[in-house]
Amino acid sequence: MEKDTIAAISTPIGEGAIAIVRLSGEEAVSIVNPLFDGKDLTNVDSHTIHYGKLLDPVTSEMVEEVMVTVMKGPKTFTKEDVIEINCHGGLASVNRLLEIVLSRGARLAEPGEFTKRAFLNGRIDLSQAEAVMDLIRAKTDKAMNIALKQLDGKLSKLVNQLRQSLIETVAHVEVNIDYPEYDDVEEMSHQLLREKTEEVYQEVERLLSMARQGKILREGIATAIIGRPNVGKSSLLNALVHETKAIVTDIPGTTRDVIEEYVNIRGIPLRLVDTAGIRETEDIVEKIGVERSRKVLKESDLILLVLNYGETLSDEDRQLFEAIKGLEYIVIVNKTDLPQALDIDEVKRLAGNQKVITTALIEDKGIDQLEDAIAETFFAGDIDSGDLTYVSNVRHIQLLQQTMKALEDAKGAIDAGMPIDLVQIDVTRAWELLGEIVGDTVQDSLIDQLFSQFCLGK
Amino acid sequence: MEKDTIAAISTPIGEGAIAIVRLSGEEAVSIVNPLFDGKDLTNVDSHTIHYGKLLDPVTSEMVEEVMVTVMKGPKTFTKEDVIEINCHGGLASVNRLLEIVLSRGARLAEPGEFTKRAFLNGRIDLSQAEAVMDLIRAKTDKAMNIALKQLDGKLSKLVNQLRQSLIETVAHVEVNIDYPEYDDVEEMSHQLLREKTEEVYQEVERLLSMARQGKILREGIATAIIGRPNVGKSSLLNALVHETKAIVTDIPGTTRDVIEEYVNIRGIPLRLVDTAGIRETEDIVEKIGVERSRKVLKESDLILLVLNYGETLSDEDRQLFEAIKGLEYIVIVNKTDLPQALDIDEVKRLAGNQKVITTALIEDKGIDQLEDAIAETFFAGDIDSGDLTYVSNVRHIQLLQQTMKALEDAKGAIDAGMPIDLVQIDVTRAWELLGEIVGDTVQDSLIDQLFSQFCLGK
Repeated sequence: MEKDTIAAISTPIGEGAIAIVRLSGEEAVSIVNPLFDGKDLTNVDSHTIHYGKLLDPVTSEMVEEVMVTVMKGPKTFTKEDVIEINCHGGLASVNRLLEIVLSRGARLAEPGEFTKRAFLNGRIDLSQAEAVMDLIRAKTDKAMNIALKQLDGKLSKLVNQLRQSLIETVAHVEVNIDYPEYDDVEEMSHQLLREKTEEVYQEVERLLSMARQGKILREGIATAIIGRPNVGKSSLLNALVHETKAIVTDIPGTTRDVIEEYVNIRGIPLRLVDTAGIRETEDIVEKIGVERSRKVLKESDLILLVLNYGETLSDEDRQLFEAIKGLEYIVIVNKTDLPQALDIDEVKRLAGNQKVITTALIEDKGIDQLEDAIAETFFAGDIDSGDLTYVSNVRHIQLLQQTMKALEDAKGAIDAGMPIDLVQIDVTRAWELLGEIVGDTVQDSLIDQLFSQFCLGK
Repeated sequence: MEKDTIAAISTPIGEGAIAIVRLSGEEAVSIVNPLFDGKDLTNVDSHTIHYGKLLDPVTSEMVEEVMVTVMKGPKTFTKEDVIEINCHGGLASVNRLLEIVLSRGARLAEPGEFTKRAFLNGRIDLSQAEAVMDLIRAKTDKAMNIALKQLDGKLSKLVNQLRQSLIETVAHVEVNIDYPEYDDVEEMSHQLLREKTEEVYQEVERLLSMARQGKILREGIATAIIGRPNVGKSSLLNALVHETKAIVTDIPGTTRDVIEEYVNIRGIPLRLVDTAGIRETEDIVEKIGVERSRKVLKESDLILLVLNYGETLSDEDRQLFEAIKGLEYIVIVNKTDLPQALDIDEVKRLAGNQKVITTALIEDKGIDQLEDAIAETFFAGDIDSGDLTYVSNVRHIQLLQQTMKALEDAKGAIDAGMPIDLVQIDVTRAWELLGEIVGDTVQDSLIDQLFSQFCLGK
């Protein structure tokens, strides 16, 4: 267990009313108390907040008017002593506060280190720690709900039940073998293992069956809008951005990355790819070049192909159909306010199983149907984040897939009449894989890597 | 006094470890308590913080894991009951929290409304409230120190002393007139008024004499870099940005405004104008057009004119000298690593009283001298934010100037032997003007306008 005291700015960077410098560790109180002109913090109750001035240790001048929260371990986020210094949210002053606590013996926290300590000190398991990050990054209420359930321990509980079931079975079988009451121990053990393995297998399969939805709710549907110039791609984009209930846009942080636009369609976040390109040139394919556009299309979860109702199908349109063959797409026949020139039957033939809807975006017609089509495509129309436990994290999904594989191996071995101890190896492997989800059987290097993706101060 | 309960997100928008929804008002506790799955908040001590879950009032589902701080008035920032809900800093969840408290009867706070209540409820005066905003926007430590002194009440105290002195004099004179003990009351009153008016006048003059420095420390020196192509403007910009100790850059908020670059020169913030333009085209004048460039130059506090040591002075250079005539500038003769071709004597003649320094930016030479020159130009080399009370706010400067004018009128009236009651009108006017600084004699519309410039949640 690391014992040093860490500190970081825990509020987003920017102008705001309140900024917080957070410390965690044995020295948290003794570092802050001599700097604090107010009550004696070594002598206050836990979970109390105190007004005072924070002083420069060298000049004794006031650095900030602050409210200091004292929370003594183990009833804290990290289970260690935690101090939060709340100040007026200026960049210069919060940076100075941080510098001062660092000069007094605190160490700058690594990204995610507070949450890592919460995990290492046993307050939360690994899947809950990951949920903390998902919660911060959630783009919609539904994504938030999935993260909250995971944070609340719903996934952990389920995984732990499955693990318990596997380990009990293995133990039971071993007892049977060591102290056989009957002659047909081998047969009975095979039977027990088959039942339990099948049971856990079914449950893992069920979890995985909803993983795609979970991943989509969490990360959004990467959506590309394509079509010839002047078919209404910008209108579609604007209609989606303006008419849907909520837009959550990534606020560029210190890195000033590209701004991505998220559109909230019935609770499903649509991540619109290269919207800037569309806005400017009205032509994504042309702008990003044929090769890159193919890459964009391949990486999209959904493509919206826009056609013009008022024109006949051109060779270019047919090439676009060709380019998205085998991918998930919806055809939008726009401009139904114009006299028909497009052969809808041909469009439907080209689209095959994919949906075709008609819109007159200029008259605000058809957006509802488009939203229906999107929701149906990904959720069979029914998005329920209520009772279900969605697995949404790629790491979890991969571990569940490996668990299924191990359980399949176990089932195969049983069916082939392999010796019990060989079957047990596969079952134990499944137990270990599930353990990696909650962080019970996981390597330090993976833990470091996971937490390094967190934001600073978390 | 407004009695309703206000709420807002008080941390900057963006991904962070902690986000805060703050409520202030009589209903703060009763709005949050039914939503809180944890201790009974109506029954806890003031200034305590409590872990729990925040529930959706309709579905009773958990919305967030939160820490709720309960602070009961009057010992709070607003002097009202204040609740702060600290949550994991996700955009979606903090927005949902805000929505929920708004749905339970809180009203969305206007920008600056928390601080406005602190002012209206008498916790801080107007100049202190303004200091809160200055503190948030401070770009350097020195700017922060000025704001802190003002927040701590240093300016308020000084202004109140001056007001006290004026009002006591007026009262004294009136008593003398009403109950004359001697025959020469008129003469004595004139004498007393002359002395006191002169005293206050001197002090106001002293404050104003440092106002330019105060304003610069607060807002930065708007600095434009000009010169012909290829003289080294980009090199200068990069040298300033990379070699100075600290850079504070405006983080674009929700508005996504132009990013301005601040460079910290010996504690003085230099605000570099149109740096993007320089970076891209190496030629600010060419890029922004002659007319706009004249405007930029006029609005700059300082112009850095770069010349090439290795070339003779061109007509273009002479035109640039012409364009900045009468403005504050420093001539930088760059590329002293090349063989001399420039006539330095002619440059010095053209520059007149303005400083000329030589640099070889490619060899990192001369930046120190440039920093000296800038510090000397604005602070006679000596920047002391220690003991001095800098007035930095434009509103305060204007009021002090008007106060000086009123006191000059009073002095003139005394010298002209005008009747005492006419003199008193001017003195009383000065007293009122000083009162506007601390918010004692100020109109509601001004108060509304001042606070509307604050950020949301403050």
